[in-house]
Amino acid sequence: MVPNITRAGRAVLHVTDLAASRRFYVDALGFVETESDDHHLYLRGYEEQHHHSLLLKKAEKPAVEVISYKVNHESVLDQLEEIAKRNNFPYRWVEKGEQRAVGKALRMQDISGMSVEFFAEMEHAERLLQRYDLYKGARIQRIDHLNCLVPDVEKAYQFYRDQLGFRCSEYTEDDNGKLWAIWTHRKGNVHDQAFMNGDGPLLHHVGYWLPDPLALIHACDVLAAMKMADQIERGPGRHGLSNAFFLYLRDPDGHRIELYFGDYFTGDGDFQPKRWSVHDKTRQTFWGHEAPDSWFNEASPFLHVITQEEVKREEATLSLYKPDFSM
Amino acid sequence: MVPNITRAGRAVLHVTDLAASRRFYVDALGFVETESDDHHLYLRGYEEQHHHSLLLKKAEKPAVEVISYKVNHESVLDQLEEIAKRNNFPYRWVEKGEQRAVGKALRMQDISGMSVEFFAEMEHAERLLQRYDLYKGARIQRIDHLNCLVPDVEKAYQFYRDQLGFRCSEYTEDDNGKLWAIWTHRKGNVHDQAFMNGDGPLLHHVGYWLPDPLALIHACDVLAAMKMADQIERGPGRHGLSNAFFLYLRDPDGHRIELYFGDYFTGDGDFQPKRWSVHDKTRQTFWGHEAPDSWFNEASPFLHVITQEEVKREEATLSLYKPDFSM
Amino acid sequence: MVPNITRAGRAVLHVTDLAASRRFYVDALGFVETESDDHHLYLRGYEEQHHHSLLLKKAEKPAVEVISYKVNHESVLDQLEEIAKRNNFPYRWVEKGEQRAVGKALRMQDISGMSVEFFAEMEHAERLLQRYDLYKGARIQRIDHLNCLVPDVEKAYQFYRDQLGFRCSEYTEDDNGKLWAIWTHRKGNVHDQAFMNGDGPLLHHVGYWLPDPLALIHACDVLAAMKMADQIERGPGRHGLSNAFFLYLRDPDGHRIELYFGDYFTGDGDFQPKRWSVHDKTRQTFWGHEAPDSWFNEASPFLHVITQEEVKREEATLSLYKPDFSM
Amino acid sequence: MVPNITRAGRAVLHVTDLAASRRFYVDALGFVETESDDHHLYLRGYEEQHHHSLLLKKAEKPAVEVISYKVNHESVLDQLEEIAKRNNFPYRWVEKGEQRAVGKALRMQDISGMSVEFFAEMEHAERLLQRYDLYKGARIQRIDHLNCLVPDVEKAYQFYRDQLGFRCSEYTEDDNGKLWAIWTHRKGNVHDQAFMNGDGPLLHHVGYWLPDPLALIHACDVLAAMKMADQIERGPGRHGLSNAFFLYLRDPDGHRIELYFGDYFTGDGDFQPKRWSVHDKTRQTFWGHEAPDSWFNEASPFLHVITQEEVKREEATLSLYKPDFSM
Repeated sequence: MVPNITRAGRAVLHVTDLAASRRFYVDALGFVETESDDHHLYLRGYEEQHHHSLLLKKAEKPAVEVISYKVNHESVLDQLEEIAKRNNFPYRWVEKGEQRAVGKALRMQDISGMSVEFFAEMEHAERLLQRYDLYKGARIQRIDHLNCLVPDVEKAYQFYRDQLGFRCSEYTEDDNGKLWAIWTHRKGNVHDQAFMNGDGPLLHHVGYWLPDPLALIHACDVLAAMKMADQIERGPGRHGLSNAFFLYLRDPDGHRIELYFGDYFTGDGDFQPKRWSVHDKTRQTFWGHEAPDSWFNEASPFLHVITQEEVKREEATLSLYKPDFSM
Repeated sequence: MVPNITRAGRAVLHVTDLAASRRFYVDALGFVETESDDHHLYLRGYEEQHHHSLLLKKAEKPAVEVISYKVNHESVLDQLEEIAKRNNFPYRWVEKGEQRAVGKALRMQDISGMSVEFFAEMEHAERLLQRYDLYKGARIQRIDHLNCLVPDVEKAYQFYRDQLGFRCSEYTEDDNGKLWAIWTHRKGNVHDQAFMNGDGPLLHHVGYWLPDPLALIHACDVLAAMKMADQIERGPGRHGLSNAFFLYLRDPDGHRIELYFGDYFTGDGDFQPKRWSVHDKTRQTFWGHEAPDSWFNEASPFLHVITQEEVKREEATLSLYKPDFSM
Repeated sequence: MVPNITRAGRAVLHVTDLAASRRFYVDALGFVETESDDHHLYLRGYEEQHHHSLLLKKAEKPAVEVISYKVNHESVLDQLEEIAKRNNFPYRWVEKGEQRAVGKALRMQDISGMSVEFFAEMEHAERLLQRYDLYKGARIQRIDHLNCLVPDVEKAYQFYRDQLGFRCSEYTEDDNGKLWAIWTHRKGNVHDQAFMNGDGPLLHHVGYWLPDPLALIHACDVLAAMKMADQIERGPGRHGLSNAFFLYLRDPDGHRIELYFGDYFTGDGDFQPKRWSVHDKTRQTFWGHEAPDSWFNEASPFLHVITQEEVKREEATLSLYKPDFSM
Repeated sequence: MVPNITRAGRAVLHVTDLAASRRFYVDALGFVETESDDHHLYLRGYEEQHHHSLLLKKAEKPAVEVISYKVNHESVLDQLEEIAKRNNFPYRWVEKGEQRAVGKALRMQDISGMSVEFFAEMEHAERLLQRYDLYKGARIQRIDHLNCLVPDVEKAYQFYRDQLGFRCSEYTEDDNGKLWAIWTHRKGNVHDQAFMNGDGPLLHHVGYWLPDPLALIHACDVLAAMKMADQIERGPGRHGLSNAFFLYLRDPDGHRIELYFGDYFTGDGDFQPKRWSVHDKTRQTFWGHEAPDSWFNEASPFLHVITQEEVKREEATLSLYKPDFSM
């Protein structure tokens, strides 16, 4: 039986200047600051009942400590340990109390070398969904998905599908029918986890859900008003893939955040995934705009869950030609 | 093990004038007409990959033939038959081929006397999500939920929770701690099925998901431009319960449709349902507007799945005082 | 030659509790506070280059000290004095320096007994249109119009048209072809000044322009979140007359504010005004909703420009039947 | 006394394929087709009370026959003839009846060589503002402005200001304080006529007003759905200059159309124009995005009002460096 994983749960990012991060995430984008100290900034969206979905830790250099999945029950963690063992993945337990607000957690290096954490329990915080008087910036609602560059998309997908129970919503193939990119989910919308062909593993972006399209436009206006227009990397635009209205931002350390609004329900048992050719440029941007080079070439490295060293990148198995690079 | 029910799937409504229905649903609201004949109108939203989520059948008088749930696999239907037997519910099988586009289905009279159908298979139709050139009216995306008046909400909820695996997102209690209304779901948002205290069983409304709040406002404008402003019964407004932006319409036969935008994710294992007092008027309309009497007093009767006679109503177990009547 | 009046310029309202007013106007609606002291609160919209368009003065009881028009040049004020003299209107000059931020001004009791002020000069303030980081609440852009109840709409209109150069955009007639209400403008949109039949003169409301329809919906949400939903009197809705998307609010002293979005250009020399019958309910609310009684029966009294006593009301010349009462 | 010019009135464009034009303007963007024949397509917005604001004429090659201004009264045309004579501009009268729906008109080659027409009268058409059932595409409301490349912006501005009564809202200067671009108006918003430094005269674009920002996003979606994404040249974005939300499109003949939403009131007698440096890139796009080369290099030629030959371009007096090129 596959483990009951609920959804993408959080990202733990290393950043070099918490004040700069706060200005970007809290002051401009409108993330809710649950709490903070000299070394941590715990952020959530207005809708979230959890303590945080984004943890920024002060560090010497930017990196991804871990991306985390929430599972349905603590017993699922044991199933996941079995999977780690079976696959010979490096892994370790993080006991309750070791991390602020998070219960017992299992961290592993997954099939692609990504640093992934699973937890069942996180301290609750007040859902601020109807505290409209506090809304500002992009009116961030909740974490939606994680998108990673991996050298072998097919291999990553097979593991997530067969052993973790992820389901495909849309995918991109090259001319030889090789899987070039794939969007997979647990929670019944377009994705919790996307994989794109590239040197990796790298975290490409964390996606956050917005309440409506004008919140995304307002985010552009606020960033510009605060002289942070340079943080806007791509968009606003409409993705062909997923149909979402999107904006890509780079935080002060270069981590990429997607503001994301409006995909669709994918939870049917007979759901038919959508195939795209790597040559169809409307899958990236339905309106035809091209993404800048940085969007293709830059992403955040993972730290090994045991050694805390940067995970070494492997070369992409498929070619990297830009027009083929997807959302 | 609870049966794997996916989501609210469709409603089958009897209407007296298909031309009038088409004008309302297709011309004004922008439902997609998948197909039709002299006795049937099959409708879906732009996002739906299924043949229809609303079936209107020509009949002598308005009624609800059945409300339907989509299940994950045909084997789930057998589990549901066991449940019907165990509870001594009247039920019958509808074989594949008996209904246009729908596979084998099980229909039963549930614990409240509601006529409920379950099916695993429906013929696919083209997902028109990105055919923006076809969008009009309210830009209907997909069916979201079903809301019913039942005489004993507690009893209905216990059955749906314990035997069908529905989970509660929000609920209303009276002064004695009695369950006055409840919102339950399978698909991870606020609801697939709501129950409200009232003489019943009656179908209160079918809820449809919109792509953004302005589509809802445009629906008002289009209805008014077509001299159908009288079909607007309540709203636009914001529900306290669910946080959705809403509009209630009455179709030409009096069936009630809700245009609905924007609730939140409820799929966590440790999700905390939200309690409302029946005296808190903001749960109905966050902005304080009162609903009209018709909204409380009028709803659509069910037809018995075996006899096709109107299901007899029983009196509500809790008092019906209007301020207590909820969303 | 008619005097060159530019537009509705400001309202000077007496209020009883400046802290309550600030909470409503600044904290909830997002008016910009240009400056304030113990007895005054000077407010403007994000777009306005002028020091204020709403002046709230602390007083024993709520009243309208004056509604003000901006004229194109100081010489226009002399033309207006001639008009006051010619019509035997009570009037007085307010010299530059007597009022904070306002140049020389002429105040008069107009043909309906309304207390109207004209000024050419007001101190400039920074236009905050692109300071999106400061936006909140309803994102108030600018003052748009003034709407008054007067006992004789025909008489008021003739004066404003013939002597002040206002032009009609839309109007309502009763069965006898009597002018029941009229919308007149100087600046080329639907109105600067509307007159409606009623016991008067009374200020019915001050209208403020919003940047988009969602800002209006957000205003409802913010008011509700701040437990001020009771300040919402009517709407949101679409006016038949003017086509604007509207919301009527009552401030803590009962003064009525309209949030207003989206009328049309009326400046053509051959513009054709639109006639409505007093019996056409879509002119009030295009979607068919009725306005509450308070909207018809309650409005703010003027203070006489010389005596500072409340201006005595005269009875409406046409009947007051509610269905005839217009926007 | 300056002539009483009301507003930008229409553009008369030569196009090579009326069917292709109809598909772009009517089917995709939602212009209203007032009437048409084998050689003409008369288009207007939903708000317009005039027969058309865009006239497309079938021709061998794309060109601008004339851009037209509506004046307040026919007598203004005689004033304008005096101005043409005084300045030795080539001009001619077009009598009522010569042009479909347009009264007597005066056409001249203005100070920059632009082909400009003035008319007081145009046949009325039904204002469709509240026929929301007909709305589609970008929900075009009305013509807003005309933007032209001219070799000497200073000279063009002086003529429009001193002899035609246009007023400046915003302008761009180079390092030497030379006027690089200017936005001028008659109707009290940001512009009726903009001039930008460039080889010219050329018509850069015709701007159309939209009802809200989502109509602009929907226009992108509709164009993409109709496989016309290539017509999108720039945007969506926010202009620093004017603060409008914009989208630039190229019609099938390369004529440029701007979809434009949301500038501000500029009609005060003491209005303070806003100055921008040619080096401030936020004036073009507040969010920092660059415009493509085509936006700077391509525009539509005028036909001489007498000879009907293409008006010869003169070289720009100021340098053409792209970063200096403005909105």
